[in-house]
Amino acid sequence: MASKAFYAVVAGVGAGTGRSVALRFAQSYPVVLLARKPESYQDIVSEIKQAGGEAFGFSTDTSDPSSVKSAFDSIKKELGDKKLAAAIYNVGAGFAVKPFLELTADDLEGSLGGSAKGLFNFAQATLPGLLESVGTAPHPPTLIITGATASVRGSARFATFAAGKFAARALGQSLAREFGPKGVHVAHVIVDGAIDIPRTKSYNVNEGKEDGKINSDAIADSYWHLHTQHRSSFTQELDLRPYVEKF
Amino acid sequence: MASKAFYAVVAGVGAGTGRSVALRFAQSYPVVLLARKPESYQDIVSEIKQAGGEAFGFSTDTSDPSSVKSAFDSIKKELGDKKLAAAIYNVGAGFAVKPFLELTADDLEGSLGGSAKGLFNFAQATLPGLLESVGTAPHPPTLIITGATASVRGSARFATFAAGKFAARALGQSLAREFGPKGVHVAHVIVDGAIDIPRTKSYNVNEGKEDGKINSDAIADSYWHLHTQHRSSFTQELDLRPYVEKF
Amino acid sequence: MASKAFYAVVAGVGAGTGRSVALRFAQSYPVVLLARKPESYQDIVSEIKQAGGEAFGFSTDTSDPSSVKSAFDSIKKELGDKKLAAAIYNVGAGFAVKPFLELTADDLEGSLGGSAKGLFNFAQATLPGLLESVGTAPHPPTLIITGATASVRGSARFATFAAGKFAARALGQSLAREFGPKGVHVAHVIVDGAIDIPRTKSYNVNEGKEDGKINSDAIADSYWHLHTQHRSSFTQELDLRPYVEKF
Amino acid sequence: MASKAFYAVVAGVGAGTGRSVALRFAQSYPVVLLARKPESYQDIVSEIKQAGGEAFGFSTDTSDPSSVKSAFDSIKKELGDKKLAAAIYNVGAGFAVKPFLELTADDLEGSLGGSAKGLFNFAQATLPGLLESVGTAPHPPTLIITGATASVRGSARFATFAAGKFAARALGQSLAREFGPKGVHVAHVIVDGAIDIPRTKSYNVNEGKEDGKINSDAIADSYWHLHTQHRSSFTQELDLRPYVEKF
Repeated sequence: MASKAFYAVVAGVGAGTGRSVALRFAQSYPVVLLARKPESYQDIVSEIKQAGGEAFGFSTDTSDPSSVKSAFDSIKKELGDKKLAAAIYNVGAGFAVKPFLELTADDLEGSLGGSAKGLFNFAQATLPGLLESVGTAPHPPTLIITGATASVRGSARFATFAAGKFAARALGQSLAREFGPKGVHVAHVIVDGAIDIPRTKSYNVNEGKEDGKINSDAIADSYWHLHTQHRSSFTQELDLRPYVEKF
Repeated sequence: MASKAFYAVVAGVGAGTGRSVALRFAQSYPVVLLARKPESYQDIVSEIKQAGGEAFGFSTDTSDPSSVKSAFDSIKKELGDKKLAAAIYNVGAGFAVKPFLELTADDLEGSLGGSAKGLFNFAQATLPGLLESVGTAPHPPTLIITGATASVRGSARFATFAAGKFAARALGQSLAREFGPKGVHVAHVIVDGAIDIPRTKSYNVNEGKEDGKINSDAIADSYWHLHTQHRSSFTQELDLRPYVEKF
Repeated sequence: MASKAFYAVVAGVGAGTGRSVALRFAQSYPVVLLARKPESYQDIVSEIKQAGGEAFGFSTDTSDPSSVKSAFDSIKKELGDKKLAAAIYNVGAGFAVKPFLELTADDLEGSLGGSAKGLFNFAQATLPGLLESVGTAPHPPTLIITGATASVRGSARFATFAAGKFAARALGQSLAREFGPKGVHVAHVIVDGAIDIPRTKSYNVNEGKEDGKINSDAIADSYWHLHTQHRSSFTQELDLRPYVEKF
Repeated sequence: MASKAFYAVVAGVGAGTGRSVALRFAQSYPVVLLARKPESYQDIVSEIKQAGGEAFGFSTDTSDPSSVKSAFDSIKKELGDKKLAAAIYNVGAGFAVKPFLELTADDLEGSLGGSAKGLFNFAQATLPGLLESVGTAPHPPTLIITGATASVRGSARFATFAAGKFAARALGQSLAREFGPKGVHVAHVIVDGAIDIPRTKSYNVNEGKEDGKINSDAIADSYWHLHTQHRSSFTQELDLRPYVEKF
């Protein structure tokens, strides 16, 4: 029961979670992909179209309010009167692993910019549309935020990365408490493990055990489940990790 | 793709979550229902059978190791060589809301008995079977524990109830960390709200708003999602609450 | 400014935290020591007396309501009209580290008995006295509960021990929320590391680094600080761990 | 036993916590006060001097790396070869309580700037000095961070304020895990209540009950306790709240 009247938007696409989530939501909605560079979304747009879906890509720097505004102007122009069913914030940013005294103001800015400011801009751009869809969309309109281990744990050498991820979790909680009662489902997902993508092929995690890295299609299944939850039973936060992950 | 070679067992059935979970899992597996009294499971067994499924009920006091042992002996006799795919611990017990100095040793015993000892006995009875099913079951064998707000918050006047629920959460975490790496998915669900069942009809929660109480079928959908998660992406804990719930 | 009109009671004394806490509180109050066996408190009673303090020991099994009742009857007889200023629950119990399927019902009972039921009995016996002292005691009357890493984390192989410790933390939260507004300070302390006592001499923790095990006198200093906090600024929970501890 | 060879620095002083902490640490150390405007520290400097202590004030915008650098250059010039014993980050910033869609990029920037970037700059400026003092200072060198309810809870309408406070807590955890093993004590304090200062006189909290707002001298006592903890028994996080506060 794909819907043509509603669309989904995914910010932060590339090889892993973003791509899988876009493909999953494209089974039911036209999907808009946002990424800084066209090469991050072009192949996914093609892939979705070849599978019979609708997809659109826009170059956007979510940490820049005017870039986000311009992207959503373009979305409006391109998608016309379609309404927003789901918005996924999956922008990865500011990953720096260094002794604290070697971290720079730029490392911190990068993390806060991508994780906190980007989410702030994205939420301000999408929440009015999500609110508008309450009551008419096939499922409760949904905003999902991709978090990480560093969303709930400030590890040694991860100071700036964790700062951004904690901040994003705070935003997610505030939004859930404000917009839940209005019918918008805001969920935060703690992805606690390495994703199985080409870039992580060489990572030696969980002793190289089979399925020791997270299959991003499995993440997408959980995001879709979140989206389809009945409004009497919303999940605000869940964790995802490989069965062999230490935690 | 219902499986006849595997079964699910649900401890703690009645009007709400247990019934919905049993019905949901019965779409794919023969289901065994455990409750203290036959009247708690008889109607659900009939309902599943009428819908074309298989169901069995056994009177069991999960807080009593010998009663649990006897139930699983009966299950073995009745279900023969079927293997265990999923075990859900949903026993409600020890709900007492009183000033601390009015709570009795029995209130505490009731809560620890139903929430902690019962889960301990149930987990010891089911984990060997779940381990045996690893690799052959349609989905990673799963143990799901029903928690509550009191699993993560000791509120005033809820001392004994929270003690049992915290203890069950501890057991769940330990089991997840020990059995996850062996392929068994152990998940704990925080049900943070009143369930919409006949007994709660008169509860005035969330200002009587529509869907202000949790639809137990929606809970069952999330339990089923947990059961079907890929082993590279297990959720250990999630919360479920009505969109209008304060938290 | 030692007070003779008020006393403190410490349940669970032996070589480590209990002894240090008793000595620390004995600088200001007569102290009552509770332990199962006289050999656990006799030397500490002598030590306090030799230092010019007052101390009393009673054999008590805190997990048994009648044993606790009898102990507090004896306290009343012995200490007459002294009022209660502080109660510390430091009973260690149920420490079992085993694969889950090797744990027994007795392991669970031991942990729940010592950590949850014992605290329940102790709190019921001491809270009336603590309430009575509100407003007249030198500091806000205080109930302090000794927790452990297992109070907030269910590790693999620690299932039963964590169950008891989680339950005790739940009780502590409920009591803090109920009795804080009445003027009684209820605090829970997470002792996250090995204590430096004869029994742990051989433990190889933190690579044998100096001060890699917790000095129990340092714990006692923090307990005393909790006891002396102003009622406008109560701590409900704090952690204590060696500087070199991983967490 | 005041030390003249070591000093303490407090960033963020005014009527409440900062002033009390400065006065408390000035009983043992010369104290440096940092605030944006001289009027925030001048009276406290005088108060400390009149009490026989040593105090210095420097106008500093902690969110600006060059301002922080310049302040610490001035400190070095003024205090010569004194070494750093304690650094307290108490900068309040970015407090905005509004519906999310009315919050602005500036609200977010203000919160992240004061809470996250300011702490980052302050920690980079003080940690080298704290490390240098390990082993010679009277107590383990200490970095204390003032947090709030919003450090652990993103409430509705507090999105940007919570983002900054969560980020600061992340930094605190990372620093504790990196610098604890090197001998520097990093602690985060959750101040969960209104402080009793002139500005909050009109706040109607906790039904106006006596001591329903936090006495900032009581906070300072807990900060001093943190500073004097033995290195085998460091607290990483504690909460402080009035006995009548709901939580």
